[in-house]
Amino acid sequence: MESIYIVKVGGAIVEDERRLGRLLRDFAALPGRKVLVHGGGRSATRLAQRLGMESRMVNGRRITDEAMLQVAAMVYGGLVNKRLVARLQAEGVNAMGLTGADGNVVRARRRPVTADGTDFGFVGDVEQVDVRLLSTLLEAGVTPVMAPLTHDGRGQLLNTNADTIASETAKALAHRYDVTLLYCFEQPGVMRRPDDESSLIPVITAADFERLVADGTISGGMIPKLENALQAVAAGVRQVIVTRADAIDGRHGTVVKA
Amino acid sequence: MESIYIVKVGGAIVEDERRLGRLLRDFAALPGRKVLVHGGGRSATRLAQRLGMESRMVNGRRITDEAMLQVAAMVYGGLVNKRLVARLQAEGVNAMGLTGADGNVVRARRRPVTADGTDFGFVGDVEQVDVRLLSTLLEAGVTPVMAPLTHDGRGQLLNTNADTIASETAKALAHRYDVTLLYCFEQPGVMRRPDDESSLIPVITAADFERLVADGTISGGMIPKLENALQAVAAGVRQVIVTRADAIDGRHGTVVKA
Repeated sequence: MESIYIVKVGGAIVEDERRLGRLLRDFAALPGRKVLVHGGGRSATRLAQRLGMESRMVNGRRITDEAMLQVAAMVYGGLVNKRLVARLQAEGVNAMGLTGADGNVVRARRRPVTADGTDFGFVGDVEQVDVRLLSTLLEAGVTPVMAPLTHDGRGQLLNTNADTIASETAKALAHRYDVTLLYCFEQPGVMRRPDDESSLIPVITAADFERLVADGTISGGMIPKLENALQAVAAGVRQVIVTRADAIDGRHGTVVKA
Repeated sequence: MESIYIVKVGGAIVEDERRLGRLLRDFAALPGRKVLVHGGGRSATRLAQRLGMESRMVNGRRITDEAMLQVAAMVYGGLVNKRLVARLQAEGVNAMGLTGADGNVVRARRRPVTADGTDFGFVGDVEQVDVRLLSTLLEAGVTPVMAPLTHDGRGQLLNTNADTIASETAKALAHRYDVTLLYCFEQPGVMRRPDDESSLIPVITAADFERLVADGTISGGMIPKLENALQAVAAGVRQVIVTRADAIDGRHGTVVKA
């Protein structure tokens, strides 16, 4: 099978010209077919503040009401996505921006109200990724640039976690491609000791993960991230690499494997 | 050759739920392959006002500075485009939103400073439409929904007139398709007497146009619109129809022909 890279970056990188330039050059240099998935970053929060909107939080999570969804459509689907696309074009990458609504590429279901009555608003959980259309684009030499927005097929846009879009797209493409999924974050990978780069763990398997969680080496927000990665690997993705945004060459970071 | 409809609508229609619903149903009902091109509407001006930005006007035309370009990317590329796409998906149309940067579909050149020193800012004049990629999308059953934004291929997004994007796309597609270009506006078509629908002129050719301008029947903003239409027809577009947004079935309005 042909290989493909799916790279997920946070939205904040778009706001940092130096880091953005580096990322785009590195992404352009990745061989073969590829997909970029971007998060939202702080621009949406800032725009909401400038518009005098109040963020409603429940249990530390933001509620996406109608006004906040419009801000997400503007910032993620417009500002961030189109800037990445235009900049990648300048790097010789034939990028094409997509929300899940575009070409029905990622269809989602609005998240149900939780047992304790929390309604997250216009937030979508991914139901289906259209591999056929993505493949058509990839075969035509196009590099999809995916924004963290989906739709329900009934006319409603939905805010959707970019990590999830990346892993669901990776799993779906694994039926046709040999997929490497790359998650960019602030650290060079998973480390045994915080802030000690020499303690980077080069490879983590499902068995390693159990052990590393049990002994406390992996904790906090890294647990769901790695669970997500292991699920992708179990579903056919060849490897997931957790690395820093300035090291997306596939030779750095922690590799999560079956 | 296979026939195709290219429909250009103003951005304002997105803000009017009743008119939008009607337009989307009518557009969905058009037979065969099709493309929707939308303008910006008043949302961009309103957002700019809410953000406390001042519109700089020169000779009655707005200057697109960096801040205004960001607003255009958010509103045209994000809010308006994605809403149209999600709503068309609900009508069974596999819509995909595109700015000119996406897939390098419409490349433009930043408008040069005029002889009298006017710099319109980040405004682009269309240089090239990529028919090959548009055809690949159309053959895959996708309906492009084009926003009034282009790029210069060097990383810069540019604000671009939607009428021009529609006519340049129509001319480019005329090499492969039998193109009908439909311009929606406020009137049922070109009329001999203002506000008298019974005076609608059903067909206008280049020869008719000269005569109707000479005798004062056609004046003002309708002159460049029809010149644009006649150029498209001269470049191989089968017909251009000027009609109201609630009558885009191809049987109403004024038909501009060779």
